[in-house]
Amino acid sequence: MLYSPSRIFFGENALTKAELYLIRLGTKPLIVTGKSSAKLSGALDELIPILKKAEQDYAIFDRVQENPSWDIVREGARFLKDAQCNYLIAIGGGSPIDAAKAMALITANNLFEEENLTPDKFSQTLPLVAIPTTAGTGSEVTQYSVLTDTSTGIKAGFGTELAFPTLAICNPRYTLSLNATITLHTAIDAFSHLLEGIFSNKRQLLLYPLIQAGIEAIMKNLEIALNSPNNLQARTKLMQAALYGGITIAQTGTTLQHSLGYPLTTHFGISHGLSNAIVLRQVMEFYYPYIKEELDILFSNLDITREDFENWLDRFPLKAEFDLSEEFIESHIAEVLASRNMANTPIKVKEEDIRKIYKSLK
Amino acid sequence: MLYSPSRIFFGENALTKAELYLIRLGTKPLIVTGKSSAKLSGALDELIPILKKAEQDYAIFDRVQENPSWDIVREGARFLKDAQCNYLIAIGGGSPIDAAKAMALITANNLFEEENLTPDKFSQTLPLVAIPTTAGTGSEVTQYSVLTDTSTGIKAGFGTELAFPTLAICNPRYTLSLNATITLHTAIDAFSHLLEGIFSNKRQLLLYPLIQAGIEAIMKNLEIALNSPNNLQARTKLMQAALYGGITIAQTGTTLQHSLGYPLTTHFGISHGLSNAIVLRQVMEFYYPYIKEELDILFSNLDITREDFENWLDRFPLKAEFDLSEEFIESHIAEVLASRNMANTPIKVKEEDIRKIYKSLK
Ligand SMILES: [Fe+2]
Ligand SMILES: [Fe+2]
Repeated sequence: MLYSPSRIFFGENALTKAELYLIRLGTKPLIVTGKSSAKLSGALDELIPILKKAEQDYAIFDRVQENPSWDIVREGARFLKDAQCNYLIAIGGGSPIDAAKAMALITANNLFEEENLTPDKFSQTLPLVAIPTTAGTGSEVTQYSVLTDTSTGIKAGFGTELAFPTLAICNPRYTLSLNATITLHTAIDAFSHLLEGIFSNKRQLLLYPLIQAGIEAIMKNLEIALNSPNNLQARTKLMQAALYGGITIAQTGTTLQHSLGYPLTTHFGISHGLSNAIVLRQVMEFYYPYIKEELDILFSNLDITREDFENWLDRFPLKAEFDLSEEFIESHIAEVLASRNMANTPIKVKEEDIRKIYKSLK
Repeated sequence: MLYSPSRIFFGENALTKAELYLIRLGTKPLIVTGKSSAKLSGALDELIPILKKAEQDYAIFDRVQENPSWDIVREGARFLKDAQCNYLIAIGGGSPIDAAKAMALITANNLFEEENLTPDKFSQTLPLVAIPTTAGTGSEVTQYSVLTDTSTGIKAGFGTELAFPTLAICNPRYTLSLNATITLHTAIDAFSHLLEGIFSNKRQLLLYPLIQAGIEAIMKNLEIALNSPNNLQARTKLMQAALYGGITIAQTGTTLQHSLGYPLTTHFGISHGLSNAIVLRQVMEFYYPYIKEELDILFSNLDITREDFENWLDRFPLKAEFDLSEEFIESHIAEVLASRNMANTPIKVKEEDIRKIYKSLK
């Protein structure tokens, strides 16, 4: 099944082109963002005049940090209700967009007091505009929201078709101010999404041209963007790739790679993209015998070998310092196996497989 | 803007995979089809047991012929109302799907007596399932309906987002029984849609991987499908290309090529796909200086020259006998210039340009 209902505006002037669609979504938006990215990217400065012109009042909730928790989402939902907003505009990386998805669902379904928020309790939502300021997450075109449960420290997501943003407004200019680390980590996140579209047992023929074009775009443009942060063409290709990655995982889900990465993020503070990067090679090695044909076709279409591919990855500083104790590993195997993403792995993953991959990282 | 809201099921067992979505769309479908394609393709035989299992009654309207008229659409809408159906399942080429779109709109908006049916009168519709039995039109994923006005003999379309099918169920097996002529003409229709996605002044970066993959799929598989009609892999690639063509023109519209072809269809009975083929070369020649860069990138990505491209086209019997009198030409220039598709041409088209292209066909 291929289902990608978000209305996408891409390129320079994306917001201007989206203007008429945006202001029709409601009368007062809540702008959901982190501390600085909305301003730094320039997106907020473009948005405010559009809202003023339409004579729309707005409120801003700018307390979403990286790897947002359910707690902050609840707080945002109450803020939204008190401010009497009726639609949301999320500006930032995956965190504000994911948080806004959950805030919209909590509000629309009046679940402010609900402890156990599961997708079956959602029957409606509020319109959501997603304005990414990184080229990575793809959340602007997915039905997923990845949130951390503060009580357990587990990063877990939910997916519901209600959470697809109504509008995705993707202007590569908003990524020009990203530093090298964020550029790299988010690009590798997108790269992982594209690869996982092939890894996944939900892989599908219709997505292959997008996956291939996305991987090619990152392999050709990531270094350029790192060396010349202001190269708009390279930024454009990275954002295009991230969008394709989002469209892809919206259909295929992510797999073991994301599952293995989550504990590294929650316990060692390693960014989401870097966590993916750290286990990428091992996951591919693990899957390879089972999806050799698909991967070989990919490499051949890209005119590279698997070795070229790994050599390319090696060029980037994708290492992190962390102490993966035996205890840590043993206590997180169950968490990895229980994560939603495991439903999409191309083969049945056993405890031993996870142990082996984690141990190889030490 | 990229907007493709139809839920697509593709491949063998597409209908089985779509089953749960389909039966939820209503309680009694009207099956809209032509005289024979629904049965020949095998689609109807797969559909009926699914409806029976869900204990859904259904009605069949099988009077849609090629290039359907508003008259038949009105008749179908009345039939739908009398049969008390509440959703539609169109099985066939573009004709039943286009007709069903209009029938759904007439019924949902109670426009049975309306003479002048324009999109501004549509505010809602009935759910529509599109099951293509050809690989060409792409109508299963577009908002367009091309219908002929019986009083004027003009083939004209309308487009409204309400007309996007809810489900597109695309099983390449349904195309195995197509004869060589239909296979060829419909493939060239899809080919034209993909090319027009580049010709169009609404061309957009995000579509290029799909356009390129679609054109490549047709160039590599059309001859195979013509020589071995039962080659499922070739049929699959052609259907994939047709779907990409539909997704493409849903964003970019078609251009002069389709506008020039319509009068050839209505007056000389030349099939839609063949009409496109007859003017393809001239239209590309005409546009080339203005979109050289885009076309050259396409050819280079396909690893071919423009000459290879034209030589490939020459391999197929894409000629028709018809007498294009000066009178005919003069009396249809205004019609071509007035067609909706002209809004998408990369350059301003003048009377003289149309005259010149038509004359070159003589
Ligand atoms: Fe990710
Ligand atoms: Fe067409």
